[in-house]
Amino acid sequence: MRAEHKAEMKARKRNIALLVAYDGTNYNGFQRQRPPIQAIQNILEERLEKIFGDSIELSASGRTDAGVHALGQVVNFFTNGRIETKKIPRAAAGYLPSDIIVRDAWEEDKNFSALHSAKSKIYIYRIQTGATVNPFAARFAWHIPYPLDVQKMSDALKILVGTHDFSAFKAAGGAPMNPVRTIYSAEIFPVREFDADILQIKIHSTGFLYHMARNIVSAVVAVGRERMTLPEFQKIFKDRDRSPIPATAPAHGLCLYKVFYS
Amino acid sequence: MRAEHKAEMKARKRNIALLVAYDGTNYNGFQRQRPPIQAIQNILEERLEKIFGDSIELSASGRTDAGVHALGQVVNFFTNGRIETKKIPRAAAGYLPSDIIVRDAWEEDKNFSALHSAKSKIYIYRIQTGATVNPFAARFAWHIPYPLDVQKMSDALKILVGTHDFSAFKAAGGAPMNPVRTIYSAEIFPVREFDADILQIKIHSTGFLYHMARNIVSAVVAVGRERMTLPEFQKIFKDRDRSPIPATAPAHGLCLYKVFYS
Repeated sequence: MRAEHKAEMKARKRNIALLVAYDGTNYNGFQRQRPPIQAIQNILEERLEKIFGDSIELSASGRTDAGVHALGQVVNFFTNGRIETKKIPRAAAGYLPSDIIVRDAWEEDKNFSALHSAKSKIYIYRIQTGATVNPFAARFAWHIPYPLDVQKMSDALKILVGTHDFSAFKAAGGAPMNPVRTIYSAEIFPVREFDADILQIKIHSTGFLYHMARNIVSAVVAVGRERMTLPEFQKIFKDRDRSPIPATAPAHGLCLYKVFYS
Repeated sequence: MRAEHKAEMKARKRNIALLVAYDGTNYNGFQRQRPPIQAIQNILEERLEKIFGDSIELSASGRTDAGVHALGQVVNFFTNGRIETKKIPRAAAGYLPSDIIVRDAWEEDKNFSALHSAKSKIYIYRIQTGATVNPFAARFAWHIPYPLDVQKMSDALKILVGTHDFSAFKAAGGAPMNPVRTIYSAEIFPVREFDADILQIKIHSTGFLYHMARNIVSAVVAVGRERMTLPEFQKIFKDRDRSPIPATAPAHGLCLYKVFYS
């Protein structure tokens, strides 16, 4: 049945891809949930059905957890709907809530899958520093009022670059999967936005294990606060031992920034 | 009675000033309202009473309208409370909701009034450009998807600098007051924040009539969209005739940025 259903979907005329941004604050993550739980996928599918006139089943580059944001989520779906591709973003704006935005739309060939064709992803984690919270940054950054040694954080991130077993940063109890990924780059840099001092941790990897980005941030922050030394960080990583890493960094600092396809 | 009450307040030992930031999205403006309407002043007074142990009556540099934000609102109040001044921001964070923040606290002499001692203010209005909304900027910027001629907007703003009658930009039906103010500077400049293109209009003035900042923005945007010429803008300003100005720019783009005292 499932294979038949897939074939039916693929028999539709068009394979539409969308670049989607969202403020994840009010949603229970990306992946479709049983109503009344509000997931971003439910809302996208419901509203896109109104535009395209047939039932929509999205495939996304990956899930994002509850509270995680996106500027560069990519999804695709098969449809017989006839709306001109370039008109999709504005049409979507008329149906979607203001915190879910279709930034771009384009047509792909039938073999493209936002999930399976993805080659790598960039996640950005934002930390707001300073003694008090800046309300303009608060929704999209973890506020850390303590001093952070940015050079040490940068050194810790460099240790992760390359092809490694990232089990140390995997959430306990996640589904078993191959824990080897290749991190192409992992950097930290400061930006200033409307009176707020933000540290952005940017990680480009072939993929991310469950909670991997947020656990990396959590360990790197421990290094920045001098609660963990660089040799300790390296040892945890090599030993694939999650236990000394502090609690997973909060979801609202994380953003799926970009997905790369070949 | 009122004068007696004022004298009683002034007889208290300390005159505390606070630098306050807020995300105005969820509040019905700054000024105290009859419950259950949520105004920022109600919440500040209620929560500060828990910290200082006596009844608090705030004076603020000025009201901000429903939905308007602040990074630099200044308030003061008299108290016999004994908490150390430098501990106030952190104590306040324990009582206040996360969208109202005490950034700084200091002690003033008895004659200081956040309202009456204010010499000038800076308001910043933020416009997000680009075809689609960036969700990270959406809460604190007016999205305008149409092309804007920034040079013409800058020229319009320059016309306003100096001491003038600003009646053209006053809301219809506001309380009668002297409409003369001195604008020290009025500029527009682009910033880029996390993939969003923002235009910031920054106006430094001895004061602002009711809706003046938002009506200036509205007229300047009309110039930027080439719906109003510079000579038309100048004529409206000189004739003190509000009628050709489009609707007041939305509140959520506006932020009280800084208040200056002598």
